[in-house]
Amino acid sequence: PGKKVLIVYAHQEPKSFNGALLKIAVEELTKQGCSVTVSDLYAMQFEPRATRNDIVGHLHNSEAFNYGVETWEAYKRGGLSKDLVEEQKKVQEADLLIFQFPLFWFNMPAILKGWMDRVLVQGFAYDLSKAYDGGLLQDKLSLFSFTTGGGQEMYSKGSISGDIRYILWPMQHGIMHFCGVKVLEPHICYAPENVSEEKRKEMLAAWTQRLKNLWKEEPIDCSPDWYFK
Amino acid sequence: PGKKVLIVYAHQEPKSFNGALLKIAVEELTKQGCSVTVSDLYAMQFEPRATRNDIVGHLHNSEAFNYGVETWEAYKRGGLSKDLVEEQKKVQEADLLIFQFPLFWFNMPAILKGWMDRVLVQGFAYDLSKAYDGGLLQDKLSLFSFTTGGGQEMYSKGSISGDIRYILWPMQHGIMHFCGVKVLEPHICYAPENVSEEKRKEMLAAWTQRLKNLWKEEPIDCSPDWYFK
Repeated sequence: PGKKVLIVYAHQEPKSFNGALLKIAVEELTKQGCSVTVSDLYAMQFEPRATRNDIVGHLHNSEAFNYGVETWEAYKRGGLSKDLVEEQKKVQEADLLIFQFPLFWFNMPAILKGWMDRVLVQGFAYDLSKAYDGGLLQDKLSLFSFTTGGGQEMYSKGSISGDIRYILWPMQHGIMHFCGVKVLEPHICYAPENVSEEKRKEMLAAWTQRLKNLWKEEPIDCSPDWYFK
Repeated sequence: PGKKVLIVYAHQEPKSFNGALLKIAVEELTKQGCSVTVSDLYAMQFEPRATRNDIVGHLHNSEAFNYGVETWEAYKRGGLSKDLVEEQKKVQEADLLIFQFPLFWFNMPAILKGWMDRVLVQGFAYDLSKAYDGGLLQDKLSLFSFTTGGGQEMYSKGSISGDIRYILWPMQHGIMHFCGVKVLEPHICYAPENVSEEKRKEMLAAWTQRLKNLWKEEPIDCSPDWYFK
């Protein structure tokens, strides 16, 4: 109660299974007394491309454009574009970040990757020697909630697609942990398009149930052991 | 000689180190008699977002938009948007795909992820039970060539960022291998922004040298062992 949650949502269709998971999270967390904000990336037509347009006014070095350097400098002088400033404010205020998306090519969809690329700039999310446990977004939690095309048996050790945790490494460790954000267990709904209506209802009910006890959960130990052991 | 190469390039600045690597590849491969095509994603303002705009004309199911189903159906009836058809034609004709980019958040930049999401649709790159060694883009090679921010010591087993190969799994195995494309050893230039001018020149010379012998290389064994052992 009183906690602030930002849900970054990347699906085109409100009637999709991802849309249903989003609706459940908004309703359940609001019922608990949380303040919930949603960044609905497709609806916002969120820009995924990292370009010169992200910097308002002059460049630090206009001879050779370096996105990392320019956004770092722009952040320090308050010169990032309005859409980025708004997303950073939402992140800053949040106690918990939930990412809701369909897995695309062993990863998040490009529109969500673009949110990571553009919002989590140096100076805001991390800095020189301020990364991982020293990252700038400490005291926040994150949770990756996603759907897959393939069934659970396809994402186990020894199967052709390997352990699903291999896929989580760049997202959970490489991004969230790098910024100092703690990581809760991922929430994975396997192949909702290929199961029965009954099974889909069970998966939705399980998400509601998990959210009821979410604030009691401990973060995972976000180290190579968790991913590759 | 006579081979066709598609370079998919994701950097904003021609004067960057990535730009220099691209230039070398174009020059060296052309010199060998290869036919080289470049998709310069930022220059093309390539759209990374997977939306309804990718389908020309009517939808298969306009009640609830499903990107995977719609692009599959559109592919079969020749109804994908013009920019995707053009990229698919380049892929179809290529013997070798080179991806040239700076590593962003343990992964490719969003604009390049969007190229993967939108170009490699079902029916074109893979299909029902046509994946991995049975994928539809067989007899092609791929090569991931990228720069990092951190030094090589940061990307080794036991270091905080883990083995660089962990990061390659979703890209090389989850995308290229899934489509039946064989994978050459990645080409990684560590921290070009933080080394001496002399070291940068060495790195460029090493890329030229590698390209001279590229067609004699054997693909890696793209199995979990290569990545996680």
